[in-house]
Amino acid sequence: MKEAKFSAALVTFGSFRDRYSDYKEPKSTPELLEEATRVDGLSGIEFVSGWDLKDEYLDDIRSSLEKTGLAPVACITNLSFSPRWAKGSFTAYDPETREAAKAEVRKVMDQAAEIKCPLVNLWFGQDGYDYCFQADYLKAWELLVLNLKEVADHNPNIRLGVEYKIKEPRTHCFVGTVGKTILLLHAVDRPNVGAIIDMGHALAAYENCAESIALLKMHGDKLFSVHLNDNYRLWDDDLMVGSIHIIEYLELLYWLEKTGYDYFYSLDIWPAREDGVGAASECIRWIKGLHRVIEKIGMEELEGLIQEGDAVKASATIREALLP
Amino acid sequence: MKEAKFSAALVTFGSFRDRYSDYKEPKSTPELLEEATRVDGLSGIEFVSGWDLKDEYLDDIRSSLEKTGLAPVACITNLSFSPRWAKGSFTAYDPETREAAKAEVRKVMDQAAEIKCPLVNLWFGQDGYDYCFQADYLKAWELLVLNLKEVADHNPNIRLGVEYKIKEPRTHCFVGTVGKTILLLHAVDRPNVGAIIDMGHALAAYENCAESIALLKMHGDKLFSVHLNDNYRLWDDDLMVGSIHIIEYLELLYWLEKTGYDYFYSLDIWPAREDGVGAASECIRWIKGLHRVIEKIGMEELEGLIQEGDAVKASATIREALLP
Amino acid sequence: MKEAKFSAALVTFGSFRDRYSDYKEPKSTPELLEEATRVDGLSGIEFVSGWDLKDEYLDDIRSSLEKTGLAPVACITNLSFSPRWAKGSFTAYDPETREAAKAEVRKVMDQAAEIKCPLVNLWFGQDGYDYCFQADYLKAWELLVLNLKEVADHNPNIRLGVEYKIKEPRTHCFVGTVGKTILLLHAVDRPNVGAIIDMGHALAAYENCAESIALLKMHGDKLFSVHLNDNYRLWDDDLMVGSIHIIEYLELLYWLEKTGYDYFYSLDIWPAREDGVGAASECIRWIKGLHRVIEKIGMEELEGLIQEGDAVKASATIREALLP
Amino acid sequence: MKEAKFSAALVTFGSFRDRYSDYKEPKSTPELLEEATRVDGLSGIEFVSGWDLKDEYLDDIRSSLEKTGLAPVACITNLSFSPRWAKGSFTAYDPETREAAKAEVRKVMDQAAEIKCPLVNLWFGQDGYDYCFQADYLKAWELLVLNLKEVADHNPNIRLGVEYKIKEPRTHCFVGTVGKTILLLHAVDRPNVGAIIDMGHALAAYENCAESIALLKMHGDKLFSVHLNDNYRLWDDDLMVGSIHIIEYLELLYWLEKTGYDYFYSLDIWPAREDGVGAASECIRWIKGLHRVIEKIGMEELEGLIQEGDAVKASATIREALLP
Repeated sequence: MKEAKFSAALVTFGSFRDRYSDYKEPKSTPELLEEATRVDGLSGIEFVSGWDLKDEYLDDIRSSLEKTGLAPVACITNLSFSPRWAKGSFTAYDPETREAAKAEVRKVMDQAAEIKCPLVNLWFGQDGYDYCFQADYLKAWELLVLNLKEVADHNPNIRLGVEYKIKEPRTHCFVGTVGKTILLLHAVDRPNVGAIIDMGHALAAYENCAESIALLKMHGDKLFSVHLNDNYRLWDDDLMVGSIHIIEYLELLYWLEKTGYDYFYSLDIWPAREDGVGAASECIRWIKGLHRVIEKIGMEELEGLIQEGDAVKASATIREALLP
Repeated sequence: MKEAKFSAALVTFGSFRDRYSDYKEPKSTPELLEEATRVDGLSGIEFVSGWDLKDEYLDDIRSSLEKTGLAPVACITNLSFSPRWAKGSFTAYDPETREAAKAEVRKVMDQAAEIKCPLVNLWFGQDGYDYCFQADYLKAWELLVLNLKEVADHNPNIRLGVEYKIKEPRTHCFVGTVGKTILLLHAVDRPNVGAIIDMGHALAAYENCAESIALLKMHGDKLFSVHLNDNYRLWDDDLMVGSIHIIEYLELLYWLEKTGYDYFYSLDIWPAREDGVGAASECIRWIKGLHRVIEKIGMEELEGLIQEGDAVKASATIREALLP
Repeated sequence: MKEAKFSAALVTFGSFRDRYSDYKEPKSTPELLEEATRVDGLSGIEFVSGWDLKDEYLDDIRSSLEKTGLAPVACITNLSFSPRWAKGSFTAYDPETREAAKAEVRKVMDQAAEIKCPLVNLWFGQDGYDYCFQADYLKAWELLVLNLKEVADHNPNIRLGVEYKIKEPRTHCFVGTVGKTILLLHAVDRPNVGAIIDMGHALAAYENCAESIALLKMHGDKLFSVHLNDNYRLWDDDLMVGSIHIIEYLELLYWLEKTGYDYFYSLDIWPAREDGVGAASECIRWIKGLHRVIEKIGMEELEGLIQEGDAVKASATIREALLP
Repeated sequence: MKEAKFSAALVTFGSFRDRYSDYKEPKSTPELLEEATRVDGLSGIEFVSGWDLKDEYLDDIRSSLEKTGLAPVACITNLSFSPRWAKGSFTAYDPETREAAKAEVRKVMDQAAEIKCPLVNLWFGQDGYDYCFQADYLKAWELLVLNLKEVADHNPNIRLGVEYKIKEPRTHCFVGTVGKTILLLHAVDRPNVGAIIDMGHALAAYENCAESIALLKMHGDKLFSVHLNDNYRLWDDDLMVGSIHIIEYLELLYWLEKTGYDYFYSLDIWPAREDGVGAASECIRWIKGLHRVIEKIGMEELEGLIQEGDAVKASATIREALLP
């Protein structure tokens, strides 16, 4: 197996908040980067525009990346983190808001270019609806396609990765499932526009993440990055890898390898009540350990199990490799 | 609004069973057809191959349809109702099983032609997986596309409607969401292959059915038929229309009208503990009543609400038209 | 039917935030109270300690309530809104935190007494766990019982209403279902300790809210208050009443009447993207309209339907009274 | 740790059916018992009255148990497997049906006595409702309590274990959660009436099974037996142990040991598409392997982790013991 490269969102090491409370004290971008260097096995960073990625920090970020050897893995666009987008960004009814959203993406693409980050993450968390009779589904889809094409052409050397999520913050997000995401990518039809799978988002949509990886492979090799975490399958709990879905993680890792995925394994966790450095380190150790299980079984053996489709035999093989 | 035509699966009037028990006494096809005539407002019938649709019944069916004026609305293929398909039909690893599945579809297409039924329903309930490492997702998809093309070409005058469902009887079905279904239709690329939306299947996939209707409209006008019922959003409970999701039904009916849907409103309910004729009649009366609510508000007014996106205003408008 | 009295949480009219963004500008308590007077049909207010209920506001609140005639309906304790409780309040492993939590409750009980509010709301949102092997379930339960007894005895004239919720902010909350809540009330065994049902929390626990009301009636007449809102059954979306579950609301309102509930119908909604005054007004109008449906059918007729258990007949009766 | 004793429902080795299809050929009770002897590590059997447990088989069963040394672990009452109970058993509106249900329980208690089986399983699958306004929740609860007391007194030497399940076959079952089950046991107040936890039912109710075990311990030591299987948390999929929830199983096994559980670990799986003997063997091997993980860590060490509540540390400890 290829050796995995691990990255994490810089916010992993900072403060958190939800509807009810704040958790932990905020840290500056340089402090966060300092924390990141303490994670065993981490070699890349994801930034969030408007939070830890701002023009004023670009020099700090560049020098820190240089000094630490950490790679810039993705710049996550702020299309969901401001009241401005409360009723949508690319699909807002208000044309000025849509223009502002595209300007925001172009700005982050420029920031990404400046810090030599090849990937910009587009997550349309506010583009959706909460109530019936609130959205024009046809118009929303047209706007998504049109505006994605437009920003993609701003700089074809920057990859745009669309991260789908079925809900939260809206009760229904337009770009919610792997199927709808691939339809969107087909319609946009730009080589620099692909998808980002978040394991937890896939689970919350009752997807098997391995299957979603396979579908993106088949439909144009469009998996640009993965966000790893775990949850109880009903909400994006953003728990640590290794918390719940051990077997599904084995299958996910198998399919990443099988489909030739070679970008970062990026952590997107929410350790509001845990030590961020410890939590990220744990996730990496779990993934490395699960990789060892796969290697112990062997990729060919696993492929053989899949071709047999015998659940009892697959269970036995995994059990023997996994359990002491 | 166009006047809606209503149909029901013939099994609505017969016996039922689940994992645990049987419910009601079985009836013959002629008896079932006799029951159907007692449903107020019903003008069409859906048959299930192998259950109430068999070669030996074709004459009975033809004469009964002629006598009663009921239209043959769909013939549902048996790709899920026999141990032969326990590990899949079109995607079975065993090539003989796949051939048998295609033969089954061709047979039902021929039966449909004989009773002048324009639509054959393909529901791939057994094509999926229950466990990790049990399915080759790439191969399954290829087989679906290949085999669908093949059966579609058997008789281009018969429409094939693929009914998606996220789970049951498998814990994961390949053709599970509207997005994946449209991807499949695009890959198959035959004018006589489209989709059937089951309201309950859409709910169980956390879809808003109205949005799914819109997506099928946009992607090639591919909505061939609808199955109507209701559930508690976590399972395909197949309850009567009007049981739970009144507002979502209003929006669904609005979008069917808006997108020019003009085929039958077909009931797919499971009244194991209720009177089948009464249950079907109730569903039709609910839909007619909800149509009156839409007419009372007016299509243009509803379109205006959608274009405003103001949930409070939409709520007020619906409330005033709905409540006494 | 008794005429319903309506109240709303004061935060309904203010600003909102979630994991990702803020929504709307904050308002002062007097401004919020001013907004509340604009809601048609509102006659009571729920306060949140630490947000709009602070010692410094007590005079303002008292004079405003007097002037406007609004009743103080509940004071919601801050046991979930501060980093101090991040790992629990009454069940925190740290004894100082537990003492602080009890002190907080006593403080709010005193504030409630000062503004003549008969009810203090205890919601243990942070008391739970996110991961396996993180909680001592036996100890947590003992602490809940012990500490609840203790605070209850601080002032037997103030009612303490325990509001259960299955998850959020923790992935699992100890006091999560109606069954566990009644067990807790039995163990605490104080006349001034009862339960508050939040319709959305009940839905998210796959409860039928009407059944939960009945259970609390039967087990000691322990329903102290209700929080009304709606959601998609998988998360506490806090949508407006009338958004989704019309029929379940009819049944809920029927059982409130049947069991002699006579406290306020309190709105707990989250109109981050809507006008708060408009959203609250809509909820009240929906409930009043649904009350009219019940009156149109008649309590006795509904009781008869329940005693027959014939879903088709119940559907017809509701449909005829509800639809135009 | 105590050495675990394993049992399985005899139906594990037979045929299956669901709403759509049959799976496998039926087998006679002697054939099923023969199959059971082929499962490595199995030492007990659960029977289902009316299926494999009938008066005519009692001699066969007795001699087979004697010959093979298999223990009779539970007799599962038929209160859900016949159209007679379609609208409830103990809570049916029809008094004759209720009497028949109690007679059925007494019959199975007598059969149990005859084959020296100490436990009768009561699962009220049909006692619930599908629609609003269909059930009298107060009356249902009274009937449950009254009738349970009555059958309990038929033979105080036979334990009655109430197995709760939140839904299926009804969309809502009265005895649906651990909390409601304990309330029921308290009201019934008989030493020979306790609870059976099915891991899958607990998951489908969003319970953490370990917590439910702890609650039953605390409330009168009322855990009479456990049913083990796995699912995707939204439905009672009855998959093999080891399929999905590895970490939750570790915690469950830890709490069974901690609370002194000493009855059988009974498999309740549904291998319709798998080899029953192989599937049961796999489950036992998984549980034994997970027991080894617990022993490797040590009960005291795990207790210490729980008392710390540090999810990162718990993750590390489990990971190091589990992964190669």
